[in-house]
Amino acid sequence: MIKAKIAELLNSNQFLQEVEVKGWVRSFRSNRFIAVNDGSTINNMQCVIDFENTKEEVLKRITVGAAIKVVGTLKESLGSQQSVEVEVKSVEILGDANPEEVKLTILSPKRHSLEFLREQAHLRIRTNTFGAVMRVRSKLSFAVHSYFQQNNFHYVHTPIITGSDAEGAGEMFRVTALDIKNPPKNEDGSIDFKKDFFGKETNLTVSGQLEGETYAMGLGQIYTFGPTFRAENSNTSRHLAEFWMIEPEVAFCDLDQNMDLAEDFIKYVVNYALKHCKDDLEFLAARQENEDKTKPKEERSDMSLLDKLKFVTENNFKRVSYTEAIEILKNSKPNKKKKFQYIIEEWGADLQSEHERFLVEKHFKSPVILFDYPANIKAFYMRLNEDGKTVRAMDILFPGIGEIVGGSQREERLEVLKEKMKALDIDEEELWWYLDTRRFGTCVHSGFGLGFERLVQFVTGMTNIRDVIPFPRTPQNAEF
Amino acid sequence: MIKAKIAELLNSNQFLQEVEVKGWVRSFRSNRFIAVNDGSTINNMQCVIDFENTKEEVLKRITVGAAIKVVGTLKESLGSQQSVEVEVKSVEILGDANPEEVKLTILSPKRHSLEFLREQAHLRIRTNTFGAVMRVRSKLSFAVHSYFQQNNFHYVHTPIITGSDAEGAGEMFRVTALDIKNPPKNEDGSIDFKKDFFGKETNLTVSGQLEGETYAMGLGQIYTFGPTFRAENSNTSRHLAEFWMIEPEVAFCDLDQNMDLAEDFIKYVVNYALKHCKDDLEFLAARQENEDKTKPKEERSDMSLLDKLKFVTENNFKRVSYTEAIEILKNSKPNKKKKFQYIIEEWGADLQSEHERFLVEKHFKSPVILFDYPANIKAFYMRLNEDGKTVRAMDILFPGIGEIVGGSQREERLEVLKEKMKALDIDEEELWWYLDTRRFGTCVHSGFGLGFERLVQFVTGMTNIRDVIPFPRTPQNAEF
Repeated sequence: MIKAKIAELLNSNQFLQEVEVKGWVRSFRSNRFIAVNDGSTINNMQCVIDFENTKEEVLKRITVGAAIKVVGTLKESLGSQQSVEVEVKSVEILGDANPEEVKLTILSPKRHSLEFLREQAHLRIRTNTFGAVMRVRSKLSFAVHSYFQQNNFHYVHTPIITGSDAEGAGEMFRVTALDIKNPPKNEDGSIDFKKDFFGKETNLTVSGQLEGETYAMGLGQIYTFGPTFRAENSNTSRHLAEFWMIEPEVAFCDLDQNMDLAEDFIKYVVNYALKHCKDDLEFLAARQENEDKTKPKEERSDMSLLDKLKFVTENNFKRVSYTEAIEILKNSKPNKKKKFQYIIEEWGADLQSEHERFLVEKHFKSPVILFDYPANIKAFYMRLNEDGKTVRAMDILFPGIGEIVGGSQREERLEVLKEKMKALDIDEEELWWYLDTRRFGTCVHSGFGLGFERLVQFVTGMTNIRDVIPFPRTPQNAEF
Repeated sequence: MIKAKIAELLNSNQFLQEVEVKGWVRSFRSNRFIAVNDGSTINNMQCVIDFENTKEEVLKRITVGAAIKVVGTLKESLGSQQSVEVEVKSVEILGDANPEEVKLTILSPKRHSLEFLREQAHLRIRTNTFGAVMRVRSKLSFAVHSYFQQNNFHYVHTPIITGSDAEGAGEMFRVTALDIKNPPKNEDGSIDFKKDFFGKETNLTVSGQLEGETYAMGLGQIYTFGPTFRAENSNTSRHLAEFWMIEPEVAFCDLDQNMDLAEDFIKYVVNYALKHCKDDLEFLAARQENEDKTKPKEERSDMSLLDKLKFVTENNFKRVSYTEAIEILKNSKPNKKKKFQYIIEEWGADLQSEHERFLVEKHFKSPVILFDYPANIKAFYMRLNEDGKTVRAMDILFPGIGEIVGGSQREERLEVLKEKMKALDIDEEELWWYLDTRRFGTCVHSGFGLGFERLVQFVTGMTNIRDVIPFPRTPQNAEF
């Protein structure tokens, strides 16, 4: 007897073999056709039972959500929905699902809103949509590792709890083992953090970049892939308090090579998904098409999900300097007609997502890499250009998503770096170890950060970031 | 001209080709032989310069730790240390390393203690030992993903910040965005956690298992690989406050299959390291051999590192019930002669690491899987056996490491689970979502947790867990 996952059996042609299938009932029609899913694929196995020879008490326990074991014969199916089915010899109920209780959950067959599904994040994984999204997420994760390992990058686990808050990428969460209801105090009444677990104040990391740089100076080329945190009170469809970030860092690599790397990397992982998630992506494409029909015409996608993915893999990203982009925006219709919320008046303006979308979706109609931004709107560690006013930064902008990658060549000159830190009031003593990388064998190096959930959103077509991570953490929500 | 990593060039036979090498100086002998390392391999590229035709000012800047670019011709080496070398045409200093400053760091050529290296965790990656350890760590990470993906497991990112503290696996770190120097208060003077970021008290996760179980009930077989945290004040060579854990969870899988999975998994990843980390493991084996020479005879390893790894991959793990183990221990010499710190007197005793080490290192002389532990020394979610007093738990014990895996078949029966939670005073309401997995299509399922750092320790032979993670977090230490 073949005990195999449904994904495997559906691709099998070992007809007339006896098989065992274990999974959960998705539907039961005409007292005859059980659709069983085991999570290995979005597709169900149709199991056809002989209801006349099946006990009534078993039949009535074959309900949506129940776990069952079926033994039977694998056959070519006569139905149009599937090529293979199981002619059932015996069916066993492993775990019931009381239909009255199921009614109160998302397991009931009616369509639910994504909002409602979020409230049952522990059950939504049993729906087609979330099964597909999370399988794609898993495959994309592996694609990330595969790409870097094939290219001889070393994976580095940078710390989650950090004593440094110098990067200043946003609000941080505090980590403490003190009894905060009754913390130990110093004589002056302030909290005595020397008594905390780490002997000082600690936070959750906002980025592994600075630690990653120290490792790139030893291992040559590294990448991180781990959780990062922002305590910003942004209750939007684009923000999470906890999200996964990928941050490669490469010694002896300048900004142009960094752009090449980012573009090659994104194309690889999207291609990987196209190759390894065919069924799930086809389902998600159809899902998006259906969603689109409910939207006003101007909000509908002009490409199918699969066409959009292929477009990214098959075309070069458009590389545009910040200065060029400002010219384009200044002369654009929405700017002249004051349709932008923030009118672009002069060089130096920080770009808003409306501007990024215009460039990507209307002007270039392709992914765009913007580079050489004004120094004063970017972080201290980015390399100053010879013009003294721009830095070797780059952002990759994607249709529908906006910024998916932010990167830069790093300032490798100790004195320039120290000056910039001084200007921004960043404590040299706290970053002594970071400065050491510029003291001992400094070199041109670059890296970028890619928000993994943004990538999953792009590939799956899901519009709310909360729907591409298993258990989203957002303001007022840390359920499960 | 070939621009390639040293790892690649050392395996090349494209002799007489012009090559470019960028890396850091490890040593400079006789004003002639520069050993350059670029992190791609533990091996250096010997670059032979013509010092008579190299400017004095360049020569004196070729110092340990400096970043240089060398262009020259790839040749067969006459030296016995390497098969390939570069006959240098030009050398360029990219980043200096002032020898006076280098003296104060671990980059200076003298041997340093591992303790001292830990204080310079940002530089220790440039030493042979840590380069080797971290390359092996990276490869092992990829082996973990490769194993599960090849076997059709789905990777799940379970949440790091959790509102649940029900698992009770140990002390937790609090996560908060409140101003803890001046927190908002309720009328009764207690802290108003409703005003905290998530609207309630939150902690750092100690395990993704419970959330992982909900996903296994949808996707069939999943694994996690992420950071977990313990706020235990254990200042030992075996404990970290922040460490990475791997937790597979499989639906329709019993304890025997779970043991099979864990054993197969460990053998796969160790084999992967043997295959893909040959040079680094040979270096680490030699390193261990040297270390051993400084130890008293009874503390020395009786096998070389490589033999120990091969032993694990080539032999079956010994499977022993807790009850059998207690009998063995009761009748053992150290127990009878009261050499154990904790004498085993009767069934029900919790095993200490001295007992585990005796079983693994003295009695069986092989990895051991202990199973069917007394219920009252194990967690609430483990499946009760028919005897009513043991649970379907298993621990895998490794020589030198102790427990490397802890797993169990999960209690899938709603009523039994609720009873156990009640007895342990675990709030049903807080785990409503966990109990739902038993309400809707429950099934036999199992999983385990493997501490990734313990695995890296085993494979690299490093005896202190702080030396196998880039930036260790321990009591009083969250530097970098």
